[in-house]
Amino acid sequence: MAGKFISFEGLDGSGKSTLIAGVRQAFERAQSEVVVTREPGGTPLAEEIRRLILKTDGESPVSATEILLYEASRAQHVAKVIAPALASDKTVLCDRFSESTVAFQCFARGISRTEVDSLNRYAEQGVRPELVVLLDLTVEESRRRQKGREAQAGSAQADRIEREADDFHQRVRNGFLAQAKEEPSRWFVLDAGLDAATLLERTLSELRRRGWLGA
Amino acid sequence: MAGKFISFEGLDGSGKSTLIAGVRQAFERAQSEVVVTREPGGTPLAEEIRRLILKTDGESPVSATEILLYEASRAQHVAKVIAPALASDKTVLCDRFSESTVAFQCFARGISRTEVDSLNRYAEQGVRPELVVLLDLTVEESRRRQKGREAQAGSAQADRIEREADDFHQRVRNGFLAQAKEEPSRWFVLDAGLDAATLLERTLSELRRRGWLGA
Repeated sequence: MAGKFISFEGLDGSGKSTLIAGVRQAFERAQSEVVVTREPGGTPLAEEIRRLILKTDGESPVSATEILLYEASRAQHVAKVIAPALASDKTVLCDRFSESTVAFQCFARGISRTEVDSLNRYAEQGVRPELVVLLDLTVEESRRRQKGREAQAGSAQADRIEREADDFHQRVRNGFLAQAKEEPSRWFVLDAGLDAATLLERTLSELRRRGWLGA
Repeated sequence: MAGKFISFEGLDGSGKSTLIAGVRQAFERAQSEVVVTREPGGTPLAEEIRRLILKTDGESPVSATEILLYEASRAQHVAKVIAPALASDKTVLCDRFSESTVAFQCFARGISRTEVDSLNRYAEQGVRPELVVLLDLTVEESRRRQKGREAQAGSAQADRIEREADDFHQRVRNGFLAQAKEEPSRWFVLDAGLDAATLLERTLSELRRRGWLGA
């Protein structure tokens, strides 16, 4: 697999979509083929699984069911989208991946790290991001930005995970930062409080430094 | 957990539903509370997962996705139905459980036994059948009975698993028989070619022998 796999992590409202769009453009200007995708989801079946995970009506999944659904969605996404793209030398930019499962299911829900790692490795089938870009944001700022979004969108409703309490999201943030400390060369941490242009510029510098985006 | 957990395994058409109905009646006559359930499914969310597993339209799950969906459905079913019933001293009769996952996903699909066992143990969260009743049937007879059923039901359509080739179902049958050999005291094997009254009588004798069904 020659293509580069880069994932983007961070609390809701941290600016992942905007940053991913900018990075995509930079790769396309450099004549690289790019696939932009997201988790949970990324294939029709994986999006159906996403709906079961995030829906707020009816029966909620227990923690074990929730992580198994995330992993089912990931296994399908890797097999059908990510692995084939990397094999064709494409760059893959993914909004969330296994590192979100460690932050949400281990740090926030309390499932053991051993179990989460083992399920992640099974679903990934050997495919892991070479670089994880973390947009680090405080929970307060994440909430403020989500409210702004909802007001703009009018009808936008928070999903089951967004509805979790602030201390849940604080543990998620801590989970991202802890993983970044464990593997500093695989993580690139940005202060998501910076403006979008600066965040993009710093990310592109990092990609050039790694030799992934021309000179 | 004081209640007894009994699962019923076998190829489609082997007579699991008829036998379960008879066993239920016997427990009810003995004034025992019984919960009859099935996998995949058994709760509203688990039934939605079942639909994703068995549907024949749209994108099919790869093997890793398929087993993770089965395990997600199981984790929910155990947490919401089976464990609470056993804790209230009820008898649980379940149409298929983890032993089907070993037969279908390991023996027939080729996922390693270590992986299947590990995922089963995670989803079960400590809950396993004390007795597995296997209705052993040849693949030929299973096909013949399914065709009879479809002719009767008129519009009944084979699901994604039923549409697998005969050698797949032969490996499933072998997978059940191999597990029965591994743990003979936990499995009770019946020749599903026998008539329904004899199958019920032999099962009830076994339950009485174990002291689970009065004298």
